[in-house]
Amino acid sequence: MKKILVINTGGTFNKVYNPLTGNLDIDKKGKALKEIQNLWLNTFKIINIIGKDSIDMDKQDRAKILSVIQENSETRVIVIHGTDTMDKTANYLAKAKLNKKIVLTGAMVPYSINPTEATANFSSAYGYILGINQKGVHISMNGRIKNHKRVIKNKEKGYFENTK
Amino acid sequence: MKKILVINTGGTFNKVYNPLTGNLDIDKKGKALKEIQNLWLNTFKIINIIGKDSIDMDKQDRAKILSVIQENSETRVIVIHGTDTMDKTANYLAKAKLNKKIVLTGAMVPYSINPTEATANFSSAYGYILGINQKGVHISMNGRIKNHKRVIKNKEKGYFENTK
Amino acid sequence: MKKILVINTGGTFNKVYNPLTGNLDIDKKGKALKEIQNLWLNTFKIINIIGKDSIDMDKQDRAKILSVIQENSETRVIVIHGTDTMDKTANYLAKAKLNKKIVLTGAMVPYSINPTEATANFSSAYGYILGINQKGVHISMNGRIKNHKRVIKNKEKGYFENTK
Amino acid sequence: MKKILVINTGGTFNKVYNPLTGNLDIDKKGKALKEIQNLWLNTFKIINIIGKDSIDMDKQDRAKILSVIQENSETRVIVIHGTDTMDKTANYLAKAKLNKKIVLTGAMVPYSINPTEATANFSSAYGYILGINQKGVHISMNGRIKNHKRVIKNKEKGYFENTK
Repeated sequence: MKKILVINTGGTFNKVYNPLTGNLDIDKKGKALKEIQNLWLNTFKIINIIGKDSIDMDKQDRAKILSVIQENSETRVIVIHGTDTMDKTANYLAKAKLNKKIVLTGAMVPYSINPTEATANFSSAYGYILGINQKGVHISMNGRIKNHKRVIKNKEKGYFENTK
Repeated sequence: MKKILVINTGGTFNKVYNPLTGNLDIDKKGKALKEIQNLWLNTFKIINIIGKDSIDMDKQDRAKILSVIQENSETRVIVIHGTDTMDKTANYLAKAKLNKKIVLTGAMVPYSINPTEATANFSSAYGYILGINQKGVHISMNGRIKNHKRVIKNKEKGYFENTK
Repeated sequence: MKKILVINTGGTFNKVYNPLTGNLDIDKKGKALKEIQNLWLNTFKIINIIGKDSIDMDKQDRAKILSVIQENSETRVIVIHGTDTMDKTANYLAKAKLNKKIVLTGAMVPYSINPTEATANFSSAYGYILGINQKGVHISMNGRIKNHKRVIKNKEKGYFENTK
Repeated sequence: MKKILVINTGGTFNKVYNPLTGNLDIDKKGKALKEIQNLWLNTFKIINIIGKDSIDMDKQDRAKILSVIQENSETRVIVIHGTDTMDKTANYLAKAKLNKKIVLTGAMVPYSINPTEATANFSSAYGYILGINQKGVHISMNGRIKNHKRVIKNKEKGYFENTK
């Protein structure tokens, strides 16, 4: 069976501390995801694109994500994405009505600072995509994994929750 | 919807370094799992039992796991278990033909030493159990998640793989 | 013999990730230093003051550090301080010509992100202050430990080095 | 000025988890010390020898440590050593009455499991050796840094303390 495709677009998941500036920069080489792959198992294929905070993503970035999904033959796709506009990209991808299983995920805390939450979000997305039958666009954050319309960020609490 | 039940039985997942003896002891209070719960989200219920390496588990221990599954009403159950006899316990639970979704998982490296693999195994089990329709007993280790008969430990390589 | 006094004024050493804002905030409770104390040994007394990046410190802040040193009877004092104006505070304290051994230290990487450099800077300051006879103001950063005028930050390379 | 010489002989400081056996093995390549060097600064020269738990060290091992100290011209030497017979090796080296500053150090917890205590022990030894004038053999463990006869392991409490 084909590997799962992981499209890594940036976001908090990939941030690393830069001692020269004191800022958290997005690692465009996706070292965090490669570390999960190395410490776990090589059961997914990684494509790194964009490398942005999701708040800075524009129409072209979303079109890019869609085209990478379409150009690759894998039917199970995880998209690592910033949390601020994860819902917007999910909506955009859902409108394309692809015949694929897609799960968006990310992190509230960079993997490089504390690997637990980022690993849990990614790995639960991975398990979910192996388990489900239904095609469509889903979100997996903080243990909430459902159709993308039913999982939203609570900006005050700092985690994702189910819609009522 | 009911939370997922996590039965934590010990194994490498829960080992912590003891500076007085230089040994790795099993933490029977399940601090590792509680840390995942705190850093992620409180979407599962934990019961700590047994607290053994799976090589030391006997018939009574397996009967205990079965009875805890039966006594609790949750229909989705993750069992954290040592890796050496995970297959044996899975077989034992499968024979009971429970009308529940059960996934066994564990770790090759203690969470306290490096949290990534343990978190990935647990969280992919969690995602899988949310995604699947079929009842039965499954194993989730190192990105391999299938019916328990199709995932086995490769003791020379140090990870689990699919049977042919 | 009296404990060493550690005055913790903030800086990168104490920064922690805030998932709600995505920023690195200064932890004014000094959790990092307490963790070193707990994992190592309780051989120093901690006073937390100011809680600022050193670039934001003003004359009053420096006067505050000086007064805390003067008010406490310990003759061996470590000051944890941001790196940008560590030299300025060192100069200010040197002018007071106190009859004490003073070492300023800090970190280029927050303890909460990677504990090694912060712990190394602090602990080498600690060892140095136990070893030296001479009174005066010193800086301990990145393995360079000397009179404060002979250790300076190289902002391009991201570490401290000796003056020629 | 010459770098400090660090002779890395093994012990808990250098232990790493082996997923194939479940044991903690001594890393003879000294990856922990190299990591401190890389994250801190390249101000010391490393020689890896022996690679044993100190409880397994024999007369030949101690003779080897002595000969490496004698063969190298550095007058400031840190010896990373297991904790169980650190006092014995210190005594042995003291009898040689070398005209050098020697500090023995090690760890109660492996660097690979939690870097803080190992880094603190090593770095305080480093700072101490830069600060002191007196030649002789010292021990630096858990914030206690003195002549080797005045710092001993408390096996029940799991840390080193001063003799009365």
